[in-house]
Amino acid sequence: MARSGDVVDARVQRSKAAVLAQTYELLSAGGIGGVSIDEVSRRSGVSKTTIYRHWPSRAALLVEACSTIGSAPPVPDTGSFGADLAALVEELAEQLRSARWAAVLPSIVDAAEREPELAELHARLHARLMAPFGVVTERAQARGELAADRGPADVGAVVAGPLFYRRWFSREPLDVAFVRRVVEDALSHFGVQDRST
Amino acid sequence: MARSGDVVDARVQRSKAAVLAQTYELLSAGGIGGVSIDEVSRRSGVSKTTIYRHWPSRAALLVEACSTIGSAPPVPDTGSFGADLAALVEELAEQLRSARWAAVLPSIVDAAEREPELAELHARLHARLMAPFGVVTERAQARGELAADRGPADVGAVVAGPLFYRRWFSREPLDVAFVRRVVEDALSHFGVQDRST
Repeated sequence: MARSGDVVDARVQRSKAAVLAQTYELLSAGGIGGVSIDEVSRRSGVSKTTIYRHWPSRAALLVEACSTIGSAPPVPDTGSFGADLAALVEELAEQLRSARWAAVLPSIVDAAEREPELAELHARLHARLMAPFGVVTERAQARGELAADRGPADVGAVVAGPLFYRRWFSREPLDVAFVRRVVEDALSHFGVQDRST
Repeated sequence: MARSGDVVDARVQRSKAAVLAQTYELLSAGGIGGVSIDEVSRRSGVSKTTIYRHWPSRAALLVEACSTIGSAPPVPDTGSFGADLAALVEELAEQLRSARWAAVLPSIVDAAEREPELAELHARLHARLMAPFGVVTERAQARGELAADRGPADVGAVVAGPLFYRRWFSREPLDVAFVRRVVEDALSHFGVQDRST
């Protein structure tokens, strides 16, 4: 019995993985508008009934398919806000340059303008993406390196704003000089001396 | 003959206006994915043949329908970079808060990731939106107020980046204090004294 249960479990896991992979595939190829349960079912070979058993809605499926977005390496902890921030900004720039989600996120931002369920998905992804900035900011505040009234929300706008602008709006390259300047501007915004120079 | 020509012209103008209005309506309601020539024809009562006579492609129609995006009031010319920049940033923040295009642009950003024709549309809209920042930057450089190596592209990332970030990514309010801080940070980035304080 245990063995046949394992077989069933393994099959369920394989089906779920196939559904999630095809969802992300469709999302990458055509944005959120390209993702339909019909098409996911056709491509994955998993029936619609089975898909709906695991995910009550298209939005729920999208949430899980996007769960890898923004799951970054460990948060740096160098003891200096400047060095932590530089490491995070470089990592974010690298992801924006090459990670597949960088081409997918605008579709979710767009959907969030109109569909509350997808606004919820967007809020989660955004929170996950920016969480490491919150961690280094709070550590710097705990060390007294950063004023208490300048929180993670500030860091987001000052740091991610210019990077996102280049990646999705002006569509200019996120070169090393630009990334370095973003860090410098952020440190000057927060009144922190850049010890890495 | 002239009179009947005028009547025809007026009818053509009315048809074109109806097509453009319905295109923008569909774009606002459902993003770029919601705009099809079929649906525009159905809603405007203008035949597909006529639509294709005026616009060779869906992208061409979208370009004209979006022509009001970013056509802002006259560019400020106060004689001070700080005051010009503050006026532009306040205007952009106001548009992001309330203009209909603020809910439409993410759809175009998304489409630009995949469709070259729409990447072209995006580039045009972006250029139009940021043009006033270029004008005030160049005037400030001509006055010697701004270093020549810090051009309009810099202004875009430093100023529009944080505003766009708040509007479309963190979805936080673009309040007066935030807008003011964006201007201050930009002036400090450019090494310009804020004379308005």
